[in-house]
Amino acid sequence: MLYLIGLGLSHETDITVRGLETVKKCKRVYLEAYTSILMTASVETLEKFYGKEVIVADRELVESGADTILEGADQDDIAFLVVGDVFGATTHIDLVIRARELNIAVESIHNASVMNAVGACGLQLYQFGQTVSLVFFTDSWKPDSFYNKVMENRKIGLHTLLLLDIKVKEQSIENMARGRLIYEPPRYMDIATAAQQLLEIEEIRGEQAYTPNTPCVAISRLGSPTQKFKAATLKQLAEYDSGEPLHSLIMLGRQVHDLELQYLYEFCDNKEEFKAMVEQDQEFFKPPPYVPEEEEFSD
Amino acid sequence: MLYLIGLGLSHETDITVRGLETVKKCKRVYLEAYTSILMTASVETLEKFYGKEVIVADRELVESGADTILEGADQDDIAFLVVGDVFGATTHIDLVIRARELNIAVESIHNASVMNAVGACGLQLYQFGQTVSLVFFTDSWKPDSFYNKVMENRKIGLHTLLLLDIKVKEQSIENMARGRLIYEPPRYMDIATAAQQLLEIEEIRGEQAYTPNTPCVAISRLGSPTQKFKAATLKQLAEYDSGEPLHSLIMLGRQVHDLELQYLYEFCDNKEEFKAMVEQDQEFFKPPPYVPEEEEFSD
Repeated sequence: MLYLIGLGLSHETDITVRGLETVKKCKRVYLEAYTSILMTASVETLEKFYGKEVIVADRELVESGADTILEGADQDDIAFLVVGDVFGATTHIDLVIRARELNIAVESIHNASVMNAVGACGLQLYQFGQTVSLVFFTDSWKPDSFYNKVMENRKIGLHTLLLLDIKVKEQSIENMARGRLIYEPPRYMDIATAAQQLLEIEEIRGEQAYTPNTPCVAISRLGSPTQKFKAATLKQLAEYDSGEPLHSLIMLGRQVHDLELQYLYEFCDNKEEFKAMVEQDQEFFKPPPYVPEEEEFSD
Repeated sequence: MLYLIGLGLSHETDITVRGLETVKKCKRVYLEAYTSILMTASVETLEKFYGKEVIVADRELVESGADTILEGADQDDIAFLVVGDVFGATTHIDLVIRARELNIAVESIHNASVMNAVGACGLQLYQFGQTVSLVFFTDSWKPDSFYNKVMENRKIGLHTLLLLDIKVKEQSIENMARGRLIYEPPRYMDIATAAQQLLEIEEIRGEQAYTPNTPCVAISRLGSPTQKFKAATLKQLAEYDSGEPLHSLIMLGRQVHDLELQYLYEFCDNKEEFKAMVEQDQEFFKPPPYVPEEEEFSD
């Protein structure tokens, strides 16, 4: 049996009781360690907590070595640990499809991920549109495919969760060209970089998918003991010191409920100013005057 | 301290290790028992597993009795358990806001919820639009506010997660009018009812937000040992026997990746037929011919 087990967001104890019981009975335990990191636990911490060896699975192993991971899984129990929940990345889907082809049974043990835990900032999960990713810009490569998606979400009033780039075990172009297996230090995009990149693209595109005054929520170290939220405009966040990784960013949509706003006040420097920015931003993509449907009176 | 603790989806052991440790040290433990249910654990099972009393918190207590729940939480640790993750319902936000007003510290211990665990069906979470709710229709009340939202999602190609109604501890209108505290048996919307209601509204509205042939994924007992997915058209699901609760439904958007489709094949009766329906449905809301942007060649 192949067990896909979500580890949650931060502590070694964020694994579920059922997940831990399963890890303990597995013959081999892999940890997928390139799409995210567990914020307050190292591989050594996990090994000590589980009482067994943890094999770190990098991108090469997961994407090209599925058969190595699955070896013997028709007879033995193998655990594949994923930070957050188990289906955050397409490569994990690939692993399950390969297991199916080999007639290996698969069971998932779910956990929290940024996709649902962002609710902790007070914004309602059902008010979010599609999630987008923001990658590190280089001088020559500034991918902006997120821009149209943010625009689509905001046109229909929805919040957007932006997942920020993580670079783990990456080679420099020079080292790659020379075939040297030297890896760059890991990089995790912070809030200021994300906000600056967003502003840079708005400057280039100029279609006002958002503005420097668009209200956002910076999410830092979600689920860890030092978790922090900051509600501010994009321009303000471009100078915000978000501290240690990991970070994500939410750009607000037009549909901000009173309860959401009231909750966000806890995280902003100046309530009145933030409220004014939210109201100003709500003028964007405003639909025609709203007439409630008859049904809404009958509840 | 007030601890909000997610219980995950199904087993008593779906709580995290950190969540369990916290429950054990709390003076009082409340279980929010009206927005969802834990599928394979009863209150008695939980009490035995935690080794302490669990106070069932119904809607009245959570919405009107926040101060009862929070009593003494400035001195003692109080746990408030929520099926799934902690911020699934606005009433929990209310509880945190009330705690803040009373200067009571709050900590969340997250867990899986339907909002992220649906990834288990193979559809990518970042391809979902806003989530909608479908409530039980009555003869005189057929709320269709979901319809415009599904349309909005599908116009931009996104999948829609539909959460299906749960009625727990509801009074009949007669018993309510007579002030009799007699509650109806719990009701959980099944897939066939959901599909029939969707078709009924499309029949009335006729704006082709979807059609009887629109491909969907029925999700039953997500995260439980009897978890089941069924990929079929809406019309087919209107006659589908989905078995024991809980259920949710996904309506596909136009952006179905090959990998998603390949994964869904495992859950349909007839691959070729399902593929044809997906291709047919992709003709809806099709944008102008797609021209890749220059950046996409440079990755």
